[in-house]
Amino acid sequence: MFKFQVLKQHSHSSARLGRITTPHGTIDTPAFMPVGTQATVKALSPEDLEHCGAQIILGNTYHLYLRPGHEIVQKLGGLHRFMNWNKPILTDSGGFQVFSLNQLAKVTEEGVTFKSHIDGSSHFFSPEQAMKVQQALGADIIMTFDEPMPYPAEKTAVETSLALSTRWAKRCKAVHREETQALFGIVQGGMFKDLRQESAKQIVDIGFAGYAIGGLSVGEDIETMYDVAAYTAPLLPEDKPRYLMGVGTPQDLLTSSGMGIDMFDCVMPTRNARNGSLFTSQGKVNIKNNRHKADASPVDPACDCVTCKNYSRAYLRHLFIADEILALTLNSIHNIAFYQNRMHKIRKAILNDAPFDPAWVNQGNNEGEDQLD
Amino acid sequence: MFKFQVLKQHSHSSARLGRITTPHGTIDTPAFMPVGTQATVKALSPEDLEHCGAQIILGNTYHLYLRPGHEIVQKLGGLHRFMNWNKPILTDSGGFQVFSLNQLAKVTEEGVTFKSHIDGSSHFFSPEQAMKVQQALGADIIMTFDEPMPYPAEKTAVETSLALSTRWAKRCKAVHREETQALFGIVQGGMFKDLRQESAKQIVDIGFAGYAIGGLSVGEDIETMYDVAAYTAPLLPEDKPRYLMGVGTPQDLLTSSGMGIDMFDCVMPTRNARNGSLFTSQGKVNIKNNRHKADASPVDPACDCVTCKNYSRAYLRHLFIADEILALTLNSIHNIAFYQNRMHKIRKAILNDAPFDPAWVNQGNNEGEDQLD
Repeated sequence: MFKFQVLKQHSHSSARLGRITTPHGTIDTPAFMPVGTQATVKALSPEDLEHCGAQIILGNTYHLYLRPGHEIVQKLGGLHRFMNWNKPILTDSGGFQVFSLNQLAKVTEEGVTFKSHIDGSSHFFSPEQAMKVQQALGADIIMTFDEPMPYPAEKTAVETSLALSTRWAKRCKAVHREETQALFGIVQGGMFKDLRQESAKQIVDIGFAGYAIGGLSVGEDIETMYDVAAYTAPLLPEDKPRYLMGVGTPQDLLTSSGMGIDMFDCVMPTRNARNGSLFTSQGKVNIKNNRHKADASPVDPACDCVTCKNYSRAYLRHLFIADEILALTLNSIHNIAFYQNRMHKIRKAILNDAPFDPAWVNQGNNEGEDQLD
Repeated sequence: MFKFQVLKQHSHSSARLGRITTPHGTIDTPAFMPVGTQATVKALSPEDLEHCGAQIILGNTYHLYLRPGHEIVQKLGGLHRFMNWNKPILTDSGGFQVFSLNQLAKVTEEGVTFKSHIDGSSHFFSPEQAMKVQQALGADIIMTFDEPMPYPAEKTAVETSLALSTRWAKRCKAVHREETQALFGIVQGGMFKDLRQESAKQIVDIGFAGYAIGGLSVGEDIETMYDVAAYTAPLLPEDKPRYLMGVGTPQDLLTSSGMGIDMFDCVMPTRNARNGSLFTSQGKVNIKNNRHKADASPVDPACDCVTCKNYSRAYLRHLFIADEILALTLNSIHNIAFYQNRMHKIRKAILNDAPFDPAWVNQGNNEGEDQLD
């Protein structure tokens, strides 16, 4: 049921135009996946997401396991039915949150013991348990359970961790049922290219439906991230989708697409939206700014999202300043639409063999709008 | 441009089926107006409101005057354009909030001096100023500026206040421009029937496009409220719309429609929604309750709103417990749809000369759901 086709190679870069087919529909790649941590992309309805052009969203296994619980989601018909999103879903394995939200998580060969960030209760996640939870949630694409490394980390520690992640990847594959879910493996190895090569070889040897690059965007500088991603991407099979986890800015998406990455996810567009920071074709807009107080123009005149078509900067500023819930929804609609629109431009350029235009992802703070007036 | 037609009298009560025509469309009466205090009905988009069946919403002059300011709203094309709601709007005069949010408001013959609840700044509202602000906002129906009385109040104080409100009503009428906005007068008089009669006579003598009953639902018991409303309604002209301000529960709407009231507004459906309290054909549901944890059924099987058509109680509970913004939106959609649906049933019964069925507005707490399990 799961299929990936490379439709066209870009003549200006290593980017490729592709299509992923899943039981819940197709995804045009390179693709950006909005993050729906707790069975909802924050402040957005499934209808909003569709209008923004999202073709796939991400769910967080750790969060859904703790609340409402994977068995309840399964009883309610799986994650798609539960949240009324009938297009593709990818769930992560929970590994990242188990560690990032639990500084005292304890790792053994068998798995990880951790405490719930909600109520402090004790839990145990193994590769088998992560698979079981993801099978209950029923996403179209699921991820192997691995051990993310902090940054910076000693090379020996990264090497040891990488070996454990490989053994865990094998255990995930062993309990995987291929009928309806595609399982992706994750390449680790920190910022060490030889370890990235070693991890890529081991994970590719096990054999997965797609491959993710994990352990980036964890605090390293941007050049290092690009360097490691560019090194790792071509180590992965050309005929499988490549997913750069947790990335990133519009610039990151453009640059990484050019390396041959096909999938991305990041909380940035929705989180920024809830803080009043909006992406536009003219740079970032801080909607709280006094300068927007009586501005009848849309956030981005080049954008055709519901927010830009119907509302002024003045109205969005008013809603935000007045603590109105609709501010969060309208801002999130715009930022997700901006991200989807950037991916559309990237795909169109690949199709037409046009160069990527840095202006698409203008991150220049040309209004000085990270600061308030 | 403003027109009110009584289409049919109910054979079982004093209720009447009517239609109000405004520059932004028609309103079937009896009608419920969702409250959009700060140029947004909390947690709902204009599209959500339309899907729920709302034909008119209310805006609060006091709030919009303070933030973003009526001049900004006017510059942005008026309240309809500002908030992207192209159907009818009614604004109150600000009088109620000036007093309820300012315990130190100081009243003279000229008007009221008060402090902003947002930043403590000093402001002055007179009948002329309230009219000027409402003219800038540009609602289809606007209200005279009057002095609401606390409850309980001495009869002499109510009588003095009533006389002031009548003089202020005359001043409002004197500066009213009839072309595009309809001005409604407000009957006061507290819980004293002779004062209600006196106020009604004075306000009707001035002559307005519609008449509101103010100063009810301010702490008196329900029998008193029904008694005063039932006494006051027939004192108002049959050929003008009657508006019972700030009311009420589904039961209040049913009962008061039967007295010949045509318009209502109340924050109850949206406020309750944001607290997880949902109106249903089987009584109130507290969506936080553990009993809904794995319940695949909709909030109300008899409801066809977006929320009930697409989401389970289990999902709504999960969203609410997890502090997700979508919970507030989906809950508000349901409660507003419930209210609009009740009004539809009332109008249909009037049309068909069927008796009002108390089951429509079952307020019985038959699940014990005001308490958590």
